[in-house]
Amino acid sequence: MRMTDLRSDTVTKPSDAMRRAMAEAEVGDDVYGEDPTVNRLEHEVASRLRKEAGLFVPSGTMANQAAILAHTERGDELFIHRDSHAYYYEGGGAALWAGAMLTLLDGEEGLFTPEELVKAVRPANIHHPRPRLVCLENTHNRAGGAALSTDRLDPVMATARDLGLRVHVDGARLFNAAVALHTSADRLVRDADSVSICLSKGLGAPVGSVLVGDKAFIEVARRYRKWLGGGMRQAGVLAAAGLLALENVERLEDDHARARRLAEGLRALGYDAWQPKVSTNMVMVNTEVEAEKLVTEAQRRGVLFGTMGKHLVRLVTHLDVDDADVDRALTVFEELKGIESHA
Amino acid sequence: MRMTDLRSDTVTKPSDAMRRAMAEAEVGDDVYGEDPTVNRLEHEVASRLRKEAGLFVPSGTMANQAAILAHTERGDELFIHRDSHAYYYEGGGAALWAGAMLTLLDGEEGLFTPEELVKAVRPANIHHPRPRLVCLENTHNRAGGAALSTDRLDPVMATARDLGLRVHVDGARLFNAAVALHTSADRLVRDADSVSICLSKGLGAPVGSVLVGDKAFIEVARRYRKWLGGGMRQAGVLAAAGLLALENVERLEDDHARARRLAEGLRALGYDAWQPKVSTNMVMVNTEVEAEKLVTEAQRRGVLFGTMGKHLVRLVTHLDVDDADVDRALTVFEELKGIESHA
Amino acid sequence: MRMTDLRSDTVTKPSDAMRRAMAEAEVGDDVYGEDPTVNRLEHEVASRLRKEAGLFVPSGTMANQAAILAHTERGDELFIHRDSHAYYYEGGGAALWAGAMLTLLDGEEGLFTPEELVKAVRPANIHHPRPRLVCLENTHNRAGGAALSTDRLDPVMATARDLGLRVHVDGARLFNAAVALHTSADRLVRDADSVSICLSKGLGAPVGSVLVGDKAFIEVARRYRKWLGGGMRQAGVLAAAGLLALENVERLEDDHARARRLAEGLRALGYDAWQPKVSTNMVMVNTEVEAEKLVTEAQRRGVLFGTMGKHLVRLVTHLDVDDADVDRALTVFEELKGIESHA
Amino acid sequence: MRMTDLRSDTVTKPSDAMRRAMAEAEVGDDVYGEDPTVNRLEHEVASRLRKEAGLFVPSGTMANQAAILAHTERGDELFIHRDSHAYYYEGGGAALWAGAMLTLLDGEEGLFTPEELVKAVRPANIHHPRPRLVCLENTHNRAGGAALSTDRLDPVMATARDLGLRVHVDGARLFNAAVALHTSADRLVRDADSVSICLSKGLGAPVGSVLVGDKAFIEVARRYRKWLGGGMRQAGVLAAAGLLALENVERLEDDHARARRLAEGLRALGYDAWQPKVSTNMVMVNTEVEAEKLVTEAQRRGVLFGTMGKHLVRLVTHLDVDDADVDRALTVFEELKGIESHA
Repeated sequence: MRMTDLRSDTVTKPSDAMRRAMAEAEVGDDVYGEDPTVNRLEHEVASRLRKEAGLFVPSGTMANQAAILAHTERGDELFIHRDSHAYYYEGGGAALWAGAMLTLLDGEEGLFTPEELVKAVRPANIHHPRPRLVCLENTHNRAGGAALSTDRLDPVMATARDLGLRVHVDGARLFNAAVALHTSADRLVRDADSVSICLSKGLGAPVGSVLVGDKAFIEVARRYRKWLGGGMRQAGVLAAAGLLALENVERLEDDHARARRLAEGLRALGYDAWQPKVSTNMVMVNTEVEAEKLVTEAQRRGVLFGTMGKHLVRLVTHLDVDDADVDRALTVFEELKGIESHA
Repeated sequence: MRMTDLRSDTVTKPSDAMRRAMAEAEVGDDVYGEDPTVNRLEHEVASRLRKEAGLFVPSGTMANQAAILAHTERGDELFIHRDSHAYYYEGGGAALWAGAMLTLLDGEEGLFTPEELVKAVRPANIHHPRPRLVCLENTHNRAGGAALSTDRLDPVMATARDLGLRVHVDGARLFNAAVALHTSADRLVRDADSVSICLSKGLGAPVGSVLVGDKAFIEVARRYRKWLGGGMRQAGVLAAAGLLALENVERLEDDHARARRLAEGLRALGYDAWQPKVSTNMVMVNTEVEAEKLVTEAQRRGVLFGTMGKHLVRLVTHLDVDDADVDRALTVFEELKGIESHA
Repeated sequence: MRMTDLRSDTVTKPSDAMRRAMAEAEVGDDVYGEDPTVNRLEHEVASRLRKEAGLFVPSGTMANQAAILAHTERGDELFIHRDSHAYYYEGGGAALWAGAMLTLLDGEEGLFTPEELVKAVRPANIHHPRPRLVCLENTHNRAGGAALSTDRLDPVMATARDLGLRVHVDGARLFNAAVALHTSADRLVRDADSVSICLSKGLGAPVGSVLVGDKAFIEVARRYRKWLGGGMRQAGVLAAAGLLALENVERLEDDHARARRLAEGLRALGYDAWQPKVSTNMVMVNTEVEAEKLVTEAQRRGVLFGTMGKHLVRLVTHLDVDDADVDRALTVFEELKGIESHA
Repeated sequence: MRMTDLRSDTVTKPSDAMRRAMAEAEVGDDVYGEDPTVNRLEHEVASRLRKEAGLFVPSGTMANQAAILAHTERGDELFIHRDSHAYYYEGGGAALWAGAMLTLLDGEEGLFTPEELVKAVRPANIHHPRPRLVCLENTHNRAGGAALSTDRLDPVMATARDLGLRVHVDGARLFNAAVALHTSADRLVRDADSVSICLSKGLGAPVGSVLVGDKAFIEVARRYRKWLGGGMRQAGVLAAAGLLALENVERLEDDHARARRLAEGLRALGYDAWQPKVSTNMVMVNTEVEAEKLVTEAQRRGVLFGTMGKHLVRLVTHLDVDDADVDRALTVFEELKGIESHA
């Protein structure tokens, strides 16, 4: 049975063009800085985000961890939303590798206010870690793929700067945010010191993320990449796919449209489906029954999705989800109404 | 000018009896486990809290850090209230030394509910740190010295157990809680795996805390104490004072009474002074002016206290604060009304 | 100018067959364990080394770091030769990430004796880290690519076992050792708890290493891989090349033969060129002049190699070095005799 | 039975004068920097060693760990003799807390040569930790209490400086070295960036060490002391004893003379007893039988000492060992000859 896979935009398989590009990639040993395709990709992403330099890494987690390590010293403090990927989904790495204390903040759609940030930063004192870094995430995954606009971001980044803090943006899905907000990705991160973007989510590359920032920062991050074990050899085979993936930015709007149609369809069926104010490629559904039960039942019917809580389901559209998949998902959800309503 | 020092109960100076006990203490090399006075103190505290074994350490911070290290492995997760000492005042040590991720919880008077704890514990998954330890604090310093009763504590500890988590109680001022609640200290920590208590706060010893738990736990904590540099030689000179300090438990009620009188007096003067539901030896004052300004002005008039926020003052009663000191503090606060009301 | 690149066997570029395999690879999301090609590769390597399970990682450094993390807890001690990769070339990661103390041992051709190991293991004591892990390396890079035989390895591993220590073998070039020793790779690591092998060195894959061990160990290592940021998505594109690389084991003998011819040629030219007792694909040259000077001069003449010390040059043969390259290198070294002899 | 305790100079018990000083000490809260006796002690030690500032800590281990933490950042490298306390007896703390890689060096009497240091420092490279700190120890415990002279120390420290490395001297028994070498303690550490000395070894205080260095360094170390849990409250009770202990420097010569007599007596009895070139308060004995056996037998006869290896015994003279104790020890060793010679 062919499956409709709405679990994540990470599941996309490389297109034929990407596979061809990988097969034909000009490569070298990237640990020596000699892989021309990696170098081109790093330069291309840095240039698109108007930062000085880039670093290709095997995953979004390594991008964030290398960024946190490069921004901090032992005993530093990070300010981060309680629902952020770097806190929620990276295994405690920021504490484990960087020894950094994460001060968890709350706030609407994955972002705290400047006032909350000011309140959280404690005065310099031997009893406290040193305030150092603000981590933001855009789009915000656990907030349902919320695209955060400059209206909300700029004041937080400006406040961070006033407080002497650096800013890292986990932009694993930054291009989704830019497309949804009809702005450019570089504008969204104008005031950030570093940004990570993923090539292997909505953009469709098989593997890889790029971290960007100024040259001195990237040099330090490159050292941490090596120490974490992220220095790869002929990584150009991956970077070649990554360069093609960057051509998929505009078509993210198709994923967003399909997600909207899916959300509307689910609500028409009576589901408590929701999207954030500026939605992207995700739909969240609050469920009456245990979310895992819906997952199991849908899987038997050929539709895959995941949970983000005991009564919360997440559906993600991407390159390998077409209109027929959306229809199919809606049909299956219609069949599952009985389960849901008898909760 | 003699100062009335309401900054903290850590400032108490050893009594003549304590000094005599220190001068006459029977000692040995505690790194070899041969200091009889240290051994007696460790046994005495463990016995009072109905735990198997005890460990003498130079500070409350080391007691908490050694406990966290001994309970956890790399990549573990702690659940702790956002206002707890082990998060707020220990320099990020839990992340720095133990590499542990602290999940910060909220809740009334320094304690979250069992429901909040259940919600915070994520299912086992390669993306998450391993849930391991709940850290509680009683009395709760930043909650104004709130004594937490078994009504609230027992369900949280029971839930922790159900979730497979261990429980550490930072009982730096546990005896204050027991006295205020008219219960025994051991009852308050009945379901805890480990407890730390401070001898150098309200009990008046110059230096030292004791960590208690079962024998296997204390053995591991002893190793971490050594590694942290807390293994002292003829520590019996300190432990002798600590043993005498344990005789000061009942008189903590005097400190509590004075704190209540201070709070009432401040309110009568028009100050926004508050205490938690079950109060102990602290009074908090929300200020109109910057708290530091009041601190400075009061200091010029011979009364010392500290701040716990930009507009929050904390006053602490202790062994070296008598009725005259309370009167004096009220007189000074009366003088300061002009400053406060012209904010 | 086409370069003869003798810097490392990491510089090999993927063959056409590998590129085709990558383009045609069946893939899935490996973070979900669903990439069939990765699963096949992990199974294949584990099976060849007669271990239960395998884990694909982006680099040899990550393989070693994940192994060290999975074998140890905070405060453990490793026993490792002073010239080993995991000490020498991994940026201090074992201390940085695992918090492990490395006890450096000496010994011929990158291996200490059982007696040296026994002597180094201190009795259990609160003052010492806990002895936990022995790290070996075969072939041994800084020993000139020495293949270590079971005559020397077995007694060390048996002693480790007797001492209650686990054994990890950094087998980045294990297949070179097996070929040179006319034995099977699995025999060499029969008594090891874990082994890492590199696909991107002599075997010619563009990226990747595989760590093997028992199932419980690999499960823990998989968690650390995620935390380090080594969880990749459609990693099957890399694994496909890795599977083909495993077909290159027997031809490693060609590299070894070329290295021997190179060594002999250099000695005939009067160079102090040496190889270990059982040599593989490396030649070391002790130089009179600063090694970097030879590197620079040779590079101008189209031959690349690296240094391993101020007066030590390393030459490595591999898939992309043929007989003509060896001749060319010898010609260039002949030209450089003048520089060397006038040191 | 009164025991003659030659296990360590850490076992000395405070004199009556020290106990009186402790009972009468002027104290304050040292976490607030307000303990006048602690401040006096810190100033006094810094001044004697001609450094800018001092920091009182509860143990020699914390002094070394705080120094290492304050000198290094994540991923730094230390150069240290294989027999040094900070490697051998501090539980792996340098790796565990500082994440520092220890490069172990060899050399006569606990000190490597400048040439060995130069050889060990690798060129800056992404594969290596950053060379940062040289740790020396004087007197050197595991070298039999060897006093290291400026003839050997100065060139090592000068070379460290040339290499851009900082220097920390573990001077737990620095005053023993100065007395034995007929020089001043400050001269021995003239070129060191930081020095730790112990008050609770030969000088006889019950608890405490002092770390000295320049002001900026001590400020950072103070922060780490707090984080490690070494911030004590009315620590002046300990510092008072420490100040008196500093008056015991000259009488260390008595301990040295007794150690020499003990060594000579043992050799006269036929034991393989040795002392370093410039000896202090220790005697080492190579034993035929297992050292632990001698320990047990001597203990039954009222004489205590410890082992430093399977066939190595260490005897230490100190304040609580008089001429009669030396005679007694020699008598017991005479009785034990039978055991030793029948090994």
